[in-house]
Amino acid sequence: MRTIALLTDFGAKDNYVGVMKGVILNINHKVNLVDITHEISPQNVWEAGFLLYESFKFFPKNTIFLVVVDPGVGSKRRALAIKTKNYYFVGPDNGVLSLAVKEDGLRKAVSLENKKYFLREVSSTFWGRDVFSPVSAYLSKGISIDKLGRVCNKIKELKIPSPQIKGSILSGRVIYIDRFGNLITNINLKDFKNFTKNKEFIFKIKSKNITKFYPYYQKAKNDELFLCEGSFGYLEVSLKNKSASSFLKAKIKDKVKLLLKKYARS
Amino acid sequence: MRTIALLTDFGAKDNYVGVMKGVILNINHKVNLVDITHEISPQNVWEAGFLLYESFKFFPKNTIFLVVVDPGVGSKRRALAIKTKNYYFVGPDNGVLSLAVKEDGLRKAVSLENKKYFLREVSSTFWGRDVFSPVSAYLSKGISIDKLGRVCNKIKELKIPSPQIKGSILSGRVIYIDRFGNLITNINLKDFKNFTKNKEFIFKIKSKNITKFYPYYQKAKNDELFLCEGSFGYLEVSLKNKSASSFLKAKIKDKVKLLLKKYARS
Amino acid sequence: MRTIALLTDFGAKDNYVGVMKGVILNINHKVNLVDITHEISPQNVWEAGFLLYESFKFFPKNTIFLVVVDPGVGSKRRALAIKTKNYYFVGPDNGVLSLAVKEDGLRKAVSLENKKYFLREVSSTFWGRDVFSPVSAYLSKGISIDKLGRVCNKIKELKIPSPQIKGSILSGRVIYIDRFGNLITNINLKDFKNFTKNKEFIFKIKSKNITKFYPYYQKAKNDELFLCEGSFGYLEVSLKNKSASSFLKAKIKDKVKLLLKKYARS
Repeated sequence: MRTIALLTDFGAKDNYVGVMKGVILNINHKVNLVDITHEISPQNVWEAGFLLYESFKFFPKNTIFLVVVDPGVGSKRRALAIKTKNYYFVGPDNGVLSLAVKEDGLRKAVSLENKKYFLREVSSTFWGRDVFSPVSAYLSKGISIDKLGRVCNKIKELKIPSPQIKGSILSGRVIYIDRFGNLITNINLKDFKNFTKNKEFIFKIKSKNITKFYPYYQKAKNDELFLCEGSFGYLEVSLKNKSASSFLKAKIKDKVKLLLKKYARS
Repeated sequence: MRTIALLTDFGAKDNYVGVMKGVILNINHKVNLVDITHEISPQNVWEAGFLLYESFKFFPKNTIFLVVVDPGVGSKRRALAIKTKNYYFVGPDNGVLSLAVKEDGLRKAVSLENKKYFLREVSSTFWGRDVFSPVSAYLSKGISIDKLGRVCNKIKELKIPSPQIKGSILSGRVIYIDRFGNLITNINLKDFKNFTKNKEFIFKIKSKNITKFYPYYQKAKNDELFLCEGSFGYLEVSLKNKSASSFLKAKIKDKVKLLLKKYARS
Repeated sequence: MRTIALLTDFGAKDNYVGVMKGVILNINHKVNLVDITHEISPQNVWEAGFLLYESFKFFPKNTIFLVVVDPGVGSKRRALAIKTKNYYFVGPDNGVLSLAVKEDGLRKAVSLENKKYFLREVSSTFWGRDVFSPVSAYLSKGISIDKLGRVCNKIKELKIPSPQIKGSILSGRVIYIDRFGNLITNINLKDFKNFTKNKEFIFKIKSKNITKFYPYYQKAKNDELFLCEGSFGYLEVSLKNKSASSFLKAKIKDKVKLLLKKYARS
């Protein structure tokens, strides 16, 4: 059985996600439906694109990722189906698919135009139900992506900002905050290790200095602020038993700095 | 594989929904389980009935809708299984099933009495687990509805209030508020278009006047309050990038008024 | 099809649960995935252990319960797979599995050591994805538990505190609070009935006296505080149409007392 994995900002209160699944099962009742999350902050394309990028490679080959975070619904923005080396992606052309698509390797992108694979009536406010769900269902039945519309040569792209090294300072940013309040930075673990080489360091965020890195949470003392190896390969800021995000009043895009202790002014 | 679609006010914190699914899979392990929502406000029969009505027709034929919003659990209110033209509905006889059942066309309603299709021990506080789930599971295996109990001639009904036209004013109400804070009214789009005939209008809600209708969200300016074509066919009140509901402090049942500009007093 | 039932503290905001399901489906795409809940308070082993205990017996025989509430992730705490009389349990050795395992009857517990059944790279912060999910998936495919590691003779245990009778007073505790604000006590219904024998009683909680027991909610008057038969066999404190928990400012572990009216001082 093929898998369709859903990622939206529709939340749990309304019937939006349930109705999308109804539409899918009406076309293909032998499919595994998996929720990645529906709690993306309303219309936050970045958050959705990042979580998709962090998730897709754990799914079975040929999984179809159905992503609906779509502030431009109804306007002239394109709707896409994309085949990559190992997967399929369906959603709006606003960059939300791009991090994952680039990572896996784009094979073909198609602009959704063939109404045969849409619901009969297409609203201007709920393409998740009327276009993206039926298209995903038909892909899960083995319909070729070529039948869905015309090939696109270029899709809109998001980029994870790269950390910058300037003199003795590595500068980065917070790029995601999880439910536990852990702050995920754009500094990956290899870069962190190459930069610090097991020497003493100072990590600066929101006027606080962090000097400890632990491979896992339990190593930290109670209420200690520390760096940690995040499960997706990036450096994280954590607070033992509490939310680092609330304590630091940190937000996505906040700047962080890393320097070796020997270079720090006293 | 048949689909059972669940709609309750049980929320996500407890084990209620998971246990219901365990009960179902114990009877039929080849079934698609879909959540419509479990975030109905506690014991709000209206909210659940409306979402069911807005959802059912997108599901595959013969889907069984298992609805548990049941303030009267344990008391003498009837428990029902209903066959309509295309679907099955299972839940308490408090009106929660009625909007959908009426829309699809009642074929047969049965009062759940045959304990053979219940769990062996029936509690007085959790019929969702002990009665409605096993009955739904047996229906999904093809058991005839006639075996479940006696035919009912009348079920309790909810009604969506009709908008009223008096002189030059169309009066309606807010009937649902979604997670984005959009206010769904009981004025359907056809009625709106027939009434305004593309002329300038004034839409009154909570002492605010709205004069713009857009087919989709992106057409609106930032922070603009506007009317929009809702995805389920009703006129909605939206606020670009914000929650119309919070901004207007609007609630379900709030009154709205629509009139043509030429009739408005200056 | 086998069922894997998931119980975690990962919440709905992030991609953690979705990724675990991706890992499982990548190993066995013919499996029913059921969420018990993912809203356990962060790292609350007790809450998870209690809900698992209250849930497991409603699931089909041979269901695999995948439980990840794991404050010690990455440290030297053991990871377990357990076979009981009717089920399988997978999770950390911190007591979270123990109430259910004891109730169903331990047959064999194994310490997870065979890396053949893990993801290729095991992080130190997300064993739910890297160890517990693949192990559960392999169990669902019929791999013998003996292949997963060495037999453990002892696992860490939680205990539901027993109510105490001292003179004419039965003392108990609040052990769980559900989303409706009902307070579940450790006094089971049989003990309650044996103790009160249909005589008038006084139930004390947070300086309030409760004197009514009803078999179901609707029997109570509006805003009345009362005792009720909970759906899992324990005595519950409820407030008609409101949250008993908010009204009483009650917390888990709060003490409750039951005595017969004739013994109460006036």
